[in-house]
Amino acid sequence: MSMVDQMTKLACGAKAASRGLSQLSSEEKNRALFAMADALVNRAPQLKEANAKDMATGAQMGLSSAMLDRLKLDDKRIAAMAKGLREVAALPDPVGRVLDERTRPNGLRLRKIATPIGVVVIIYESRPNVTADAASLCFKTGNATILRGGKEALHSNTDIAETMVAAGRAALGERFPAHAIQVVNTTDREAIPALLSLTQYVDLCMPRGGEGLIRAVAECSKVPVIKHYKGVCHVFVDRAADLAMAEQIVMNAKVQRPAVCNAAETLLVDAAVATQFLPAIAAKLWNKGVELRADPATFTVLNAKLETPKSKLKAAVESDWSTEYNDYILNVRTVDGVAAAIAHINHYGSAHSDAIVTADETAATRFLAEVESAAVYWNASTRFTDGGEFGMGAEIGISTDKIGARGPMGLDELCTYKWLGYGTGQVRG
Amino acid sequence: MSMVDQMTKLACGAKAASRGLSQLSSEEKNRALFAMADALVNRAPQLKEANAKDMATGAQMGLSSAMLDRLKLDDKRIAAMAKGLREVAALPDPVGRVLDERTRPNGLRLRKIATPIGVVVIIYESRPNVTADAASLCFKTGNATILRGGKEALHSNTDIAETMVAAGRAALGERFPAHAIQVVNTTDREAIPALLSLTQYVDLCMPRGGEGLIRAVAECSKVPVIKHYKGVCHVFVDRAADLAMAEQIVMNAKVQRPAVCNAAETLLVDAAVATQFLPAIAAKLWNKGVELRADPATFTVLNAKLETPKSKLKAAVESDWSTEYNDYILNVRTVDGVAAAIAHINHYGSAHSDAIVTADETAATRFLAEVESAAVYWNASTRFTDGGEFGMGAEIGISTDKIGARGPMGLDELCTYKWLGYGTGQVRG
Repeated sequence: MSMVDQMTKLACGAKAASRGLSQLSSEEKNRALFAMADALVNRAPQLKEANAKDMATGAQMGLSSAMLDRLKLDDKRIAAMAKGLREVAALPDPVGRVLDERTRPNGLRLRKIATPIGVVVIIYESRPNVTADAASLCFKTGNATILRGGKEALHSNTDIAETMVAAGRAALGERFPAHAIQVVNTTDREAIPALLSLTQYVDLCMPRGGEGLIRAVAECSKVPVIKHYKGVCHVFVDRAADLAMAEQIVMNAKVQRPAVCNAAETLLVDAAVATQFLPAIAAKLWNKGVELRADPATFTVLNAKLETPKSKLKAAVESDWSTEYNDYILNVRTVDGVAAAIAHINHYGSAHSDAIVTADETAATRFLAEVESAAVYWNASTRFTDGGEFGMGAEIGISTDKIGARGPMGLDELCTYKWLGYGTGQVRG
Repeated sequence: MSMVDQMTKLACGAKAASRGLSQLSSEEKNRALFAMADALVNRAPQLKEANAKDMATGAQMGLSSAMLDRLKLDDKRIAAMAKGLREVAALPDPVGRVLDERTRPNGLRLRKIATPIGVVVIIYESRPNVTADAASLCFKTGNATILRGGKEALHSNTDIAETMVAAGRAALGERFPAHAIQVVNTTDREAIPALLSLTQYVDLCMPRGGEGLIRAVAECSKVPVIKHYKGVCHVFVDRAADLAMAEQIVMNAKVQRPAVCNAAETLLVDAAVATQFLPAIAAKLWNKGVELRADPATFTVLNAKLETPKSKLKAAVESDWSTEYNDYILNVRTVDGVAAAIAHINHYGSAHSDAIVTADETAATRFLAEVESAAVYWNASTRFTDGGEFGMGAEIGISTDKIGARGPMGLDELCTYKWLGYGTGQVRG
């Protein structure tokens, strides 16, 4: 069977499943999710066995110990997957939610309601728990899922998906659509373009992972892609900032968890407070082991200090301003006020999350209005951009796109809508 | 200058303009729109002169009289464009609308607000009034527009856009961004792929026109495309239908305005009422000159009648079921109940607008839930899928996509959103 035929079979099955999924009640979906959670725990020995095959291949492939750690499934991680499924079951069902309602002068009653999107392809890298997370969020929203994880995780991902499907079928019988959750059963690279050419069956693709992966998917896809690009997040300390608050926010945004997309990569400091703020914040950052990459003005201020650890202060180069380090590195630039900060962010940022620290409402309002990012904060850390922190429950990712969902994507964001018209024989005059 | 350089210049200007546009108040935008409306009327002689050049070229190109009629600008049409602009000015401004609001346990206040999308490319065919319609809707929503009409309308489109820009600048001075409304100033076919490769500047493309145009645009675009495909709309007459109501809805959906996308192309009749309903509706449709293309069961029923005009009854071929005729032609199929009707519609339809006529709430509920179209009606005509009829005011088109807007696209649907976080120094624990 050619790759296109193979993917067509998969996608066509998913489309049929999506019709069955849209007919499940919330109670049925939740019952299936609880059964899936139990099954993951009960089948922990088999899951670990499948995972051991992947770990062995991974070691042969020469994966780093960090990569091998991400790949590993142990009882704790299996329990965490099960807990995630139960949490998704406990969330309200967004399908059928009335988004708008109006009665026209002719008596026609219109309702805009949330509906499943249909068939969603999720492409991701190593961690097998994404399989359970993504599949459960899609299942709860009535979407059929096609999962494509890293090739090093194929056995683990397949076993997780098969466990979920078997549990769903045991819970709901014939009502559970056979192809609701599928893993792409080949590691061939050609599978992705083949699958993403099938616009008649596939409604959406969400790649999760490094920028290279996401760009490659977006480049080849004929179906809509919601992209979760890098997070080049900024904190701007305005001249009217409470500098103690600014220090706390900068430290939190950079070092509380540097490896995540909503961590800050660049600190912008208003020139009016630069000489006062920079040495203090630099000392705190250096104390946590953060390397600073500074523009000339900042460099001059910091380099003049006797106590500066020279190895932790570098001159920033142009490409630094648009780099997501995910590490203990921070760009620092002195800017001339809020307008310059906004211009820097819109030019170098990734439209993810950016913050201003200021007591000046005019500056804050301008920043909130003009920074073109999915989440913009006034006197709060960029680290809050997260489905859980936003009160959405679980999230499938954070979109940096403008069409479709933007920012954290929870259950609501995995739905589309349709209009229902209730008439009594109305015709158009 | 290469085509990519030329389009980059255009798109880069639009991106800069989009930032200026997002800073205009509702009052400023409306003032500019009224000034544009006045300017179109005042410059009618010049607009007609530009249009005369297009009409002459069009005649030389051998355009049909219908095409030439679409291309023509006269005082009535110019007045209609101006009226459209004033209506857009009168509509509420969607930008800044609060879509969601929540305060988290840590006191962080989150607001989800509607914002402009940024830079929107509109690709369309002959009628120059689309230039004013599309530009005004985009302007009102704070989006910079790049317009690409038919090559036969270049002079008209350019003159309309320049008139609007000059009027906007006269009304708002420096506050009016110079590149808010631009027409692609070449008829070169390579301009479209070049423009739609510029993901760093262009946020969305909306092609309007025939299926071939839309497919070609979707195929080449690297930016998100909201597609307005064909309308293969259905009316299903259920066994529990009020047959008098069904007749009125079928007649309205087919003949009130056959050339539009929300007109019906296929009538599905429940086998239980086929022998009763078909002869009566066929007689009414024939009386209006409608040709029927029937499946074997329907053909047999209708062909048996003495009074049947044989030239107006044909056997449907497979491709007919997915054809948008935009004409006095209707497919007719006898189906075995609501499930078969739903399966037919989801298989052959275009996810635009479909209706069920029935007094049976169970059948209606199933139809509304399972038909996967942007608009689904119970006891009302498919012809209602329209921004005006939905109470949205003007519309820029009707989306048959699932990601981004779906169904009629008015001002709200030309916006995206962002999250604003208002804190008092919150950091993540």
